Amino acid sequence: MSPVAVAIGEYIEQLSRRVEQALDRLVPAESNPPEIIHKAMRYSLFAGGKRVRPVLCIEAARAVSGGEPDLIMDVACALEMIHTYSLIHDDLPALDNDDLRRGRPTSHKVFGEAMAILAGDALLTHAFVVLGSIGDARLVSELATASGTVGGMIAGQVHDIEGERQSPTAELLDRIHRAKTGALLRASVRMGAIHAGASEDQLDALSRYGEHIGLAFQIVDDLLDVLQTSEELGKTAGKDAAQHKITFPAVYGVEASRLMAERERDSAHACLTGFGVNATRLHELADLIVDRSK
Amino acid sequence: MSPVAVAIGEYIEQLSRRVEQALDRLVPAESNPPEIIHKAMRYSLFAGGKRVRPVLCIEAARAVSGGEPDLIMDVACALEMIHTYSLIHDDLPALDNDDLRRGRPTSHKVFGEAMAILAGDALLTHAFVVLGSIGDARLVSELATASGTVGGMIAGQVHDIEGERQSPTAELLDRIHRAKTGALLRASVRMGAIHAGASEDQLDALSRYGEHIGLAFQIVDDLLDVLQTSEELGKTAGKDAAQHKITFPAVYGVEASRLMAERERDSAHACLTGFGVNATRLHELADLIVDRSK
Repeated sequence: MSPVAVAIGEYIEQLSRRVEQALDRLVPAESNPPEIIHKAMRYSLFAGGKRVRPVLCIEAARAVSGGEPDLIMDVACALEMIHTYSLIHDDLPALDNDDLRRGRPTSHKVFGEAMAILAGDALLTHAFVVLGSIGDARLVSELATASGTVGGMIAGQVHDIEGERQSPTAELLDRIHRAKTGALLRASVRMGAIHAGASEDQLDALSRYGEHIGLAFQIVDDLLDVLQTSEELGKTAGKDAAQHKITFPAVYGVEASRLMAERERDSAHACLTGFGVNATRLHELADLIVDRSK
Repeated sequence: MSPVAVAIGEYIEQLSRRVEQALDRLVPAESNPPEIIHKAMRYSLFAGGKRVRPVLCIEAARAVSGGEPDLIMDVACALEMIHTYSLIHDDLPALDNDDLRRGRPTSHKVFGEAMAILAGDALLTHAFVVLGSIGDARLVSELATASGTVGGMIAGQVHDIEGERQSPTAELLDRIHRAKTGALLRASVRMGAIHAGASEDQLDALSRYGEHIGLAFQIVDDLLDVLQTSEELGKTAGKDAAQHKITFPAVYGVEASRLMAERERDSAHACLTGFGVNATRLHELADLIVDRSK
């Protein structure tokens, strides 16, 4: 599959299908005892996610080495497992208490709270089963740190919970988004680059690309929560405002937020000079992330 | 510290203090934002646990190489982080719903359910931050697999939950214990051995040692739940029976269970021939695990 032979939308669909085939290979079958936990893991993994993190990981590897997706596929899948675990735990009654995710009942609504907690734990754990078998401990460090409590995803979730009781400032917003969504998106790009043998300069440029699209992604997510209906979103709309979450539109307003997202997109593009045609899809992904809000 | 200069009880206390110093070094300080998550992680990590897994890991390494505890300390601490995360999640209202652990209120009683879920996630994640920085992906595979859903700790928790609705058979009991406690205890020994450069034969012998003491440990734990008061246990006693858990005394009776534990201890001793004086503490630990029930 040449990187520019098909339009980006169709390309992502094709790549997503390959990611899903790999996830199917990497996660124990439902017939494996205890069946219920594998059923719960798979219910959330195969819920029609956009596979943003795997796609970023695969395309970052391609930007560096021009490599085939299959070489990086297991790394890409580990990222999706971490992302999915975070959604399952985020939706729990004790956290966001959400009944709907991607248009379907959330894990705890289907399997009960105990099994949803364990399914999240299991996906988190399985990401490291997968990475362990790849044999490069740097990838383990990247993923664990990006998922952790020091500027990582869990830090973001905690700031998010605490933020509900604080006034929405630009500084707090920046800290929350960088940790909650930014760290894992950045790690997606970095892990692809590291696995493909990036130089220090390449890794640095792609890390900055990851930060810019991460910020753009979060701004657009916040905008969608304000502008779209639950049906369009596939999850409960307007929950951010209802839960007094600190969001970009809440701090900057809708129009300024949209401009910020576009500025981040432009900065992301600028990081890709030097990668040539192998970075075509990364350019297109930056555009696509921002265009979601139109 | 010579391996035989002090009695085993005092020796374990000394070693536990060194493990706690290392945990203190490896886990972000409470002053690190977000403070509350590091406070919650530390609350459960420093709750007076017996540090069985770190001690087993350190002594397995010593049996292989005669090495100093400091060389294996970070690996040992990763095991304790996984164990502690599993306790926090196990105690949650949706799972065992326990208010008391090691004589203190459980995490969710102190920090609330949301933070207890995240503190468990954080300790699980941080174990891999620590292992990632050691740089040996085999250790990542060992720990993740032992903690996972295929014969690992999460499988044991799921079997345990499902077992409450099933009749207590020897076969089901065996499956639950092997996964729930056995896998991580076995991994503790194996990770120490692997890190110390064990040969295939040594790793095999120590794996079997780990399985035998793992079984002995679970039998004794079940016996203590029947025989001791909550005050002696530091957690709610008699909960296994109240929750219709499948336990060794429930299946075999108290006396037969005790004999089984002693037989496992003897088998554990037999696995250590060939390691000589460096395995002295592993012999003593096998004795100690079974003597707890007297």
